[in-house]
Amino acid sequence: MSAPAADAARPLAIICGGGSLPIAVAKAVSGRGRGVVLFPITGTVSPEAVAGYPHAFIALGQLGRLTRLARKFGCRDMVMIGTVLRPALRQIRLDWATLRELPRIVAMFRGGDDHLLTMLGRIFEDQGFRLLGAHEVAPEILVPAGPLGRRVPSERDRADIARGLAALTAMGPFDIGQGVVVADGHVLAVEAAEGTDGMVERVAALRGAGRIPLPAGRGVLVKAPKPGQDRRFDLPSIGPRTVESARRAGLAGIAVAAGATIIAEPQAVAAAADAAGLFVQGVASEAAKPPESA
Amino acid sequence: MSAPAADAARPLAIICGGGSLPIAVAKAVSGRGRGVVLFPITGTVSPEAVAGYPHAFIALGQLGRLTRLARKFGCRDMVMIGTVLRPALRQIRLDWATLRELPRIVAMFRGGDDHLLTMLGRIFEDQGFRLLGAHEVAPEILVPAGPLGRRVPSERDRADIARGLAALTAMGPFDIGQGVVVADGHVLAVEAAEGTDGMVERVAALRGAGRIPLPAGRGVLVKAPKPGQDRRFDLPSIGPRTVESARRAGLAGIAVAAGATIIAEPQAVAAAADAAGLFVQGVASEAAKPPESA
Repeated sequence: MSAPAADAARPLAIICGGGSLPIAVAKAVSGRGRGVVLFPITGTVSPEAVAGYPHAFIALGQLGRLTRLARKFGCRDMVMIGTVLRPALRQIRLDWATLRELPRIVAMFRGGDDHLLTMLGRIFEDQGFRLLGAHEVAPEILVPAGPLGRRVPSERDRADIARGLAALTAMGPFDIGQGVVVADGHVLAVEAAEGTDGMVERVAALRGAGRIPLPAGRGVLVKAPKPGQDRRFDLPSIGPRTVESARRAGLAGIAVAAGATIIAEPQAVAAAADAAGLFVQGVASEAAKPPESA
Repeated sequence: MSAPAADAARPLAIICGGGSLPIAVAKAVSGRGRGVVLFPITGTVSPEAVAGYPHAFIALGQLGRLTRLARKFGCRDMVMIGTVLRPALRQIRLDWATLRELPRIVAMFRGGDDHLLTMLGRIFEDQGFRLLGAHEVAPEILVPAGPLGRRVPSERDRADIARGLAALTAMGPFDIGQGVVVADGHVLAVEAAEGTDGMVERVAALRGAGRIPLPAGRGVLVKAPKPGQDRRFDLPSIGPRTVESARRAGLAGIAVAAGATIIAEPQAVAAAADAAGLFVQGVASEAAKPPESA
């Protein structure tokens, strides 16, 4: 293990997937006076988005290129953030360092997402890097407890939120997903490989087809990390697009685990929620507690 | 309570939703020498499908018409079978008997499916009818243990089946759904309001988009009733269309709880599975045990 204090004086390597979160993290870390080097994944990030920061594009599977460049820039700490769809194997470009790790990488794909990311973290640590959670380097990106906009959940919404959190906790051991939609106590949708947006779009489609016999304005999107999940990666996240999806699905609002959900643009989310008449609430949850052994 | 033996001599009222199951049940019951009267729900069943049996169409919400006609035909025992999508409230035509029950019916919609059906069963029982499960009047419609076609699950498939059954059991208390898709230990999809076909089509779409990094021929659709579920209605069911969906989703096969899953056309299912190279397996499951209190 390297000395954390000395590592923290070095620039932070940010491996960037899609969406606005990586840039929000880069901005927050820079604002604290620490240097950053961005490693956007080819095909998921536009060159314009990273133009303002030192950066080098990497393809999925180029572990060797990534670790070589990160060392060249003097980085020891790494953060991985942003959406990376599970790629088709043919889209991955393998370099030699990756080929050496291939047996472990193949093993990753056999478990759930947690397993995949934990194994990837271990590979970086074996290479002498320290993998941190985005919230450790930029705590301002976490959703606080309470409402983000003007609206707050009704009593019925609170019951739906409690049921959603309980369902997520029950499903935790199966590494399924981080989101459910609950309306009037009825679980309408469970997120798995399709992701949160896919799940909420499905609820919108079911509602449009008359298959949800409840008026618009009923139902809550509930998101929370899996119990025991490694917090250094893959915390649930929300943004203005999540609010827009929830509006299209006719939901009353969005509840996320306070202190355990990442938000790139809190002001934009609050404004979108107010405009749509939805609540966005940070809630306490069992799942929001870090695991005992952490 | 009325005397079951005397009731069994009277014709059986079959409230028919969509699909081929209601007719399969009517045929099986007639084959045993018992009379049947079909009450197809308007809009879900074609007049041709029920032409061979005494029948009267009913609209959703016409409880009064249904119970009046069933009494006129001399029925005491009732079976509800077939797919009924949760209707939009505006599609329901309320008659007076239904209006009297409206507070209870509104309460139904607030719970999950189990609650809805259990309450509906109670309303019929209060009216002097006895609600039976389709499998009680026609046990030949249940999937037996073992393979239906020529193929059998591999060791990997068996691990996926075990994981799927465990996930369904964990979700049981939340009345979510009766199906999951598991591939290489990873839960790819969970069924809720969209139904089994909707869930399997989603897996096909994710696979088509390259978002499932596994070759075709991996993954199992696992279906089982919810633990503690009232077996008189809403047992999971499969048919040739389920096999066709599973084929499109690139799955290895389908596993269903033996003795607790309804199948309308076993020969057609076996033939479709053999043609597609899929297995269809009746498996023992915790969930397949009826509740202790039954």
